[in-house]
Formats: sequence, structure tokens, C-alpha cells
Amino acid sequence: MVQLAKGSRKSGATRRIYLSLRDQILSGVYDTGEKLPSSRALAGELGVSRTTVTAAYDQLISEGYIQVRQGAKPTVGFEGRHTCTRPESRPQDTTPRVSAYASRAMALPKNISPEQAVLQYDFRYGDVASSDFPKLAWRRALNAAVLAHRERLGYEHPAGSLALRRALQSYLWRARGIECDVAQIIIVSGSQQALDLCARVLVDAGSQVVLEEPCYAMARNVMLATGAMPVATPCDKDGMDTSRLPDPTGVALAFVTPSHQFPLGGVLPSGRRKALIEWAIAGNTYIIEDDYDGEYRYDVRPIPPLWMTGKGRVIYVGTVSKTLSPTLRLGYTVLPSTLVETFVRCKQITDRHSSSFEQEALASMIDTGAYESHVRKMRRLNAERRAVFLNAMAEAFGDEVDIVGTSAGLHIVAWFNCLTASDEERFAGCARQEGVGIYPISRLFASPTDQRAGFIFGYASMPVALIGKAVEKLVQVYRSKFWSA
Amino acid sequence: MVQLAKGSRKSGATRRIYLSLRDQILSGVYDTGEKLPSSRALAGELGVSRTTVTAAYDQLISEGYIQVRQGAKPTVGFEGRHTCTRPESRPQDTTPRVSAYASRAMALPKNISPEQAVLQYDFRYGDVASSDFPKLAWRRALNAAVLAHRERLGYEHPAGSLALRRALQSYLWRARGIECDVAQIIIVSGSQQALDLCARVLVDAGSQVVLEEPCYAMARNVMLATGAMPVATPCDKDGMDTSRLPDPTGVALAFVTPSHQFPLGGVLPSGRRKALIEWAIAGNTYIIEDDYDGEYRYDVRPIPPLWMTGKGRVIYVGTVSKTLSPTLRLGYTVLPSTLVETFVRCKQITDRHSSSFEQEALASMIDTGAYESHVRKMRRLNAERRAVFLNAMAEAFGDEVDIVGTSAGLHIVAWFNCLTASDEERFAGCARQEGVGIYPISRLFASPTDQRAGFIFGYASMPVALIGKAVEKLVQVYRSKFWSA
Repeated sequence: MVQLAKGSRKSGATRRIYLSLRDQILSGVYDTGEKLPSSRALAGELGVSRTTVTAAYDQLISEGYIQVRQGAKPTVGFEGRHTCTRPESRPQDTTPRVSAYASRAMALPKNISPEQAVLQYDFRYGDVASSDFPKLAWRRALNAAVLAHRERLGYEHPAGSLALRRALQSYLWRARGIECDVAQIIIVSGSQQALDLCARVLVDAGSQVVLEEPCYAMARNVMLATGAMPVATPCDKDGMDTSRLPDPTGVALAFVTPSHQFPLGGVLPSGRRKALIEWAIAGNTYIIEDDYDGEYRYDVRPIPPLWMTGKGRVIYVGTVSKTLSPTLRLGYTVLPSTLVETFVRCKQITDRHSSSFEQEALASMIDTGAYESHVRKMRRLNAERRAVFLNAMAEAFGDEVDIVGTSAGLHIVAWFNCLTASDEERFAGCARQEGVGIYPISRLFASPTDQRAGFIFGYASMPVALIGKAVEKLVQVYRSKFWSA
Repeated sequence: MVQLAKGSRKSGATRRIYLSLRDQILSGVYDTGEKLPSSRALAGELGVSRTTVTAAYDQLISEGYIQVRQGAKPTVGFEGRHTCTRPESRPQDTTPRVSAYASRAMALPKNISPEQAVLQYDFRYGDVASSDFPKLAWRRALNAAVLAHRERLGYEHPAGSLALRRALQSYLWRARGIECDVAQIIIVSGSQQALDLCARVLVDAGSQVVLEEPCYAMARNVMLATGAMPVATPCDKDGMDTSRLPDPTGVALAFVTPSHQFPLGGVLPSGRRKALIEWAIAGNTYIIEDDYDGEYRYDVRPIPPLWMTGKGRVIYVGTVSKTLSPTLRLGYTVLPSTLVETFVRCKQITDRHSSSFEQEALASMIDTGAYESHVRKMRRLNAERRAVFLNAMAEAFGDEVDIVGTSAGLHIVAWFNCLTASDEERFAGCARQEGVGIYPISRLFASPTDQRAGFIFGYASMPVALIGKAVEKLVQVYRSKFWSA
């Protein structure tokens, strides 16, 4: 049954007439040159006003289906006929011709979140608890942004809201010790877009790109889709082992997480930081510093970003996904001055600019101090989650499990000394059946080396009260041998 | 002066000590192996608590600047020295090595909006009046979206909010006669991102892409940055002249605006629509249908999109930039089923997904009918702006100006019969000096042909009361001959 736009009864009649005539023409009931009834005749026949019919005819004329000469009946002016059944109801050529980029993207391991099954105890990394989101503060900031006076609504500068970039400039200095000019800050739609822009601006198909081993999967995916040749550089407890970096000549880009290596959690020591930067200078290579969870450190204060000593080789990437919500899609980059103009151009081509109201809302949350007080609150809350979780794991598994990367961030890696990497998927599968989501680390290795089974546990979305139960469930699965059958 | 995070006086002292020691180590005041004072000695010397100093030392240890053996004084463990002056304060290599994509993007005509000068009467196309934005309805919808119950906040499906895609499915049928499955709808961050995704998925460097002549500049820019070879196909009063399409073999993509050609305003007749689709089938080529202002038609009802008769060759692109605001960055595509999975993958790599709260806000505005009643209000309002503007132009210029593209959309093109294309920039410049922003059409031609001067007038951001004055100002500039000097 044809649904009609609300409050358009009259034009609804016109539309019905128009649609039925169009379909008859398209399906060949009326052929080219054939005459339609006069508007008067058709109006009488259908029992509608003549203007209703005329409006329908006007529509058909404006689309070229019919022609009218003064006084004469309308004639079908449509060349030939073709049916207008829904495109999707007819056979498709099932192999669309796509770009090299798309072919590479389709060859990537499938990684479409969210996973459909809702688990009772999910340690999926990247999620945050809905109850942690500062609903009131965000609504207040958003409402202010919507109500703010503007002359007109037009496309804004691709680099983003000046208010937000100013707010971030001083936030980054207060919180991370970054001294930069506002002009070096570009707002992006989440750190994912920052990685994608880096690939666009700096990487060609065939370029070498240095990645950490193991590596954040979506960073590797960006580079593989771009056609880069990844060079996996092993990480140990101190992050990337810079002594094993390849010859920098011809390397376009290196992706690192120096504050808290993802997923292993190492903190890159200053000696390696220095070596990495000298390596980049030697190769005229750029470094992406993904500071994805720099706000979360429990034993020590945040570590100054690589960017500060980067001598213009480092692209700093930050996000609010871990402090506010991953669903907001707000992030920022701090660029070497020489790259600013290029990033601005490419950002504009990509999506013009990021959502303005949300940029302004974040700006006012930072300016009022609401953002930093929320970050402090989150730091306390996640410190508690972490403590409860680590205790529960120690009690449940004792020294059958080694846990690493605990000093920072919102996740840890647990190595199961009595399981091998080949057990990971099966164990995770059985845990899922019991409602516990754990995530095998082998998925993040280009070529797994460690023989033990490892899993990433994100705890930021876990209610403190449930953590104990979750670990209990997990240890039950672990002890029961059915899963290894 | 060092700014400190609010409410962190104690840790502020720690941070000051940490920073000064770090800088002394980095700048070589302390060299490798050298001893630092004991925490007790330094605490006494600085008149702070010993724990304050210990915390600073812990930080330096965690970053590898110093080492401590039980009972002994901390020794500098940092290999070698380098200064840590701000990266931006030292000479840069001024020619960064960038990708082929970035080089092409930088070679494009510069087109960074907004233009800084605020004009009293600006006919810039794409802007909408701030007063037209439905602040109350949008705030209500946003607040509901923020407050909506969620188990957790995690990355959502790249195709976008299911609620919004469902709402759009029925909206697109009601308003545009599109029958599609929810699975064929993908939410994007504005139509610009849709164009960019089409280029990524379907275009390689060197691919031929058919563009309208004249053409929407940002569509051409996307294709040029991707390295496509554009084939300009002339448009007349009925839109793209399909009889002048190139051989479709090897053409990857065609970009068209069939409902209201941008900028000339022609409506593509059904004969040409049929020819275009058969052309695409013959070449296994896809067509982007940019329905950028399909909601705005004044003399006739909206025209059914090409998509409906497109036999799976057409990618429909819609946006709320003209109905709500270009600053929201919300758009949507309706895809042939064969392309859905590929677009989803590439969208995820690009930015994971679009902003969730705003997607849900739009969904509820559509579901409650608030969106469509706003669209009807905007149609009335812009019909009035258009009428006032066309009258003013007719009075002021009579037959010295030909106006085209008036039956739809939010802009018109005015051809000045007594001026040549070479006068455009100078005339626009003098108009700007008088506070009137008009935009030369030659900028949108790959190779201008029409000898007359033409300008695009967008009226959607103009207060009705100012339109007469604006045209008055313009005709004054036109009559006064100083500008042609």
C-alpha cells in the first residue's frame, strides 16, 4: 500500500495518478506517440478535480514522459519502453568491478563490530560502561552548542572548530605536556580517521610501513587496505624493540603506541624513544604516536608524548573514545607544521569537517573543567576495576597465568602458561558459551611467536560488582576439561 | 609559566621536580652514570615532602631516565643526550615526502571554506540560515538520544544506526519513491564522505570518471585527488547530454545530479535517464546520483530518483545539509546490493562509523514526523526567498540577465548577457567590496565555453527582508563602471 507524506491528501491524489500513468508508460501500456486522455476527460473518469490531473500531467511533462501541444491531448514522448521493477528484484552481475583499494579491504580479516551476541560478562576491549558517560554535562554542553548564536550555518574549516582546538591546546599542555600551536591541531572523526588520513597523506601502495608486533588490528587494516608493505617490529615488555627496526630508507611511516603498547602494555623507555626518532630522521620517515589511553596511568603520572622530542617527525593522535565514549567519533592530531596544510586538504576531501555541535560541546566541557574532572573520576573508577580484576585473577589462577601491561590503560594481557596459542580460539569459544567474552591475542600478531595462549581483557565496561563473578565463570571453564576435548 | 591540572597541587610539585630533572638529564646537565641526590636530600633541599620527590623519581624510573638500586642514590641511566627544545622551534625539512594522493590533493584549486570575510549580503551556495535550524526539535531529539538506555558504549556497525536506517527507508519511500532494503542504506558523515567512499571503492588512479560539465567542485576534487581521469560531459537545460557520453568501456564511475543539475539546474528527462542507465550497463559502470537538494521543488513534485530504474547501477546519495544544517555532517547512501559489503568495509576503515548520538537524534526526528514537517516548512520558506529574489533580479536587470535552474533547489544561475566570462572574477571582487558575495560559474567548468559571465546565487541563508537590498547593491555595482576599469 502506498504510504503518503503526512498532510498531503490533495497532492496524494495527484501522486497516485502520476505514479499509475508513469508505470503504464514505463511498462508499455502506452507507447511512444500514443495519446493520453485530456485532463478534463481523465478528471471526470477518476472523479477528481481537473487541477489534480493537470498537476499529475505537469509532473509527467517535467520528467519528459509526455508532451503537450496547446489544445491537443498529451502524447507519450518517452522513447521506447523498459520495465521499472525494483532494481534489486532483477538479477545482478554478482561480481562488481571494484578498485584495488576495495579488493585489498575485502581481503582483510573480517572485523565488523559490534558482535551480535550480548554477553553477560564481556571483556571486549574498547567498550566503556554506559553508566560512566557524563550524560548531564554532555547534554548541557550540547544544548549550549545548539543554541549558540550563529550568523549562518555553512561548511566550517576542515581543521575543525577553533574553540575546540584552542581548548585542546591548553588541555594537551596541562595533561600531556605537549606544547604546540593551535594551527598544528586538526580535529578528526575518531582516531581511526587520523590513522586513515596518515595513510592517505604519507603512504602509497607498495610503501613500507613499520608496525608493532603485536599490533592494533585497525591500524594494520588501514595500512594493508592502502597497499602498504607492513614491517612487523617485535615488542617486548618495554614496547617496540627499536634495535630490530628495519633500514629506515624507503619506510614511509611507523605506527607506535609508546605510552602503553597495544596490546602488551609496555612503556617505551627514553633510550628507545631517542633511537626511534633518530631512525625516523635518518629515513625522512614519520611516526604515528597513537596515545589511545594516555589519560589512564595508575602508578605514575602520564608520560610526556614522543611528540615533544620528535623533532617534527611525530604525528600525535588522541581521542575521547576512552574518556567519554567511542560512539562520539571525536579525536585530534597534533602535526608537524610541514604536514598541516596537506592534512587539512585531505580532511576536506574526505568529509569536509567533523560534526560542529559535538566539537563545540567538547570545547566547552574542556573550558569549564568538566572534562578534566570527568577524566579524573574515570581514572579512579578504572583503577578500582583494575584492582578488583587483578585480585580476582590472582586468586583464581595463581601462577598459572602471567598478567602484563597493568600499569596503565583500560586493558591487560593474560598469558595462560598451561595453554598454547592453538587453544586460544577454542577456549574463547567455550568461555563465550558461558557468557564470558575474552579475546585471543594471536589475532593481533602478523606471525605469532609466543607459544602460550594469551587473551586481552578490557575492563572499562565491567561493573565492579560483576568482575569477580566473571573471573569465577572463566576459571570454571578453564578447570572443566570439556573445552579442550 | 607552567599551567597545572586543576586540583593537583601536590602532584603539581612532583611534576615540577620531574620536569626540571628530566630537562637537566636531556640537556646533559647530568650525564649517564652520574648520581642524583637521594630523595631525602632533594626533599630537604626543595622543602617538599620526601614522597613528592619519590613520586618524581618513580616517574623518571618508569621512563628509563634514571635507575635505582636498593639503598643507593639514583643514577642517570639515559644513553647519550639530546636537547628537548620544541620540535617546532628547530629547522624543519620543508619538503615532506608525501603520497601520490597527497600531491594530487595539494595540486587542486584551493577551496578551504569558510571564507574569512563576513559579508553583509552573501549568496554563497550551501549555507543555510541559522534561524531556520529547528533548535528545539533537534535538542529534544539529541537529549533523548543521550539519555537512551544502553548496556555499554562500544563501536557500532559501520553501516550506521539501525534505527536511523529504518527511519530513512520509509522516509525515502514517502518522500522520494525509493523502495530499498534497510541493508542497502549506509549512513555517512555528509555526502562528501559518500563521494569519497565511492572513489575509494570504485576508482583507481588512471580510471576514467564521467563528470558533468559544469560540475560540483568537491566531486571533481575527490576524483582528481584519487588520480582519476575526468571526462567532462556537457550539460544543457535538461542536465547532462547523454548523447555526448564517452564509450563506457573502462569508465569506472559517472557522477550526475539528475533531479537538479548542479549548478545549471536542469532536470534530466526520462529518455536521458534511460540512456544513461543503458550506457552504465553496457560498460559495467556505476552511477553516483547526488540528490543534494531533492526536497526542494516548487512547481512540481519531487522527481523519482534514477536509483529506482537504475537496475543496480546507481548509488543514491542524500544529505540533511540542505534540510537541517551542513554543519551536522549527516548523509546517507542507497547502494546496489552487490556493493553493500564493500562499502561497509571501507567505511569502517575510514572512521569506524558516524556519530551515534546524532544518528539517533535524526532517527527520532524522522519517526516523530518532526523532520518532514520541518522540511515542508523549509520548502515554503525557501519558495518565498526564491520568489522575492527572482522578482528583485527581474526588476533590477530586466533582460540583461538570464536566470536558469529556478524550478528546484536553493540556488539559481544568472547569466549576465552584457558581461563576458573574463569579467566574472573582477565583478565578483567589486561586489564583495560592497558587501555582496556572488560566485563565478567558470570555477565549476573544466573548460569554460559560454562566453557570458555567469554567477551562482544561493539564497537559502538570506533573510527575506535583505534580498531586495542585496540585489539593489549588486545592480549599483553593475551600473557603476568603475569595476570594469
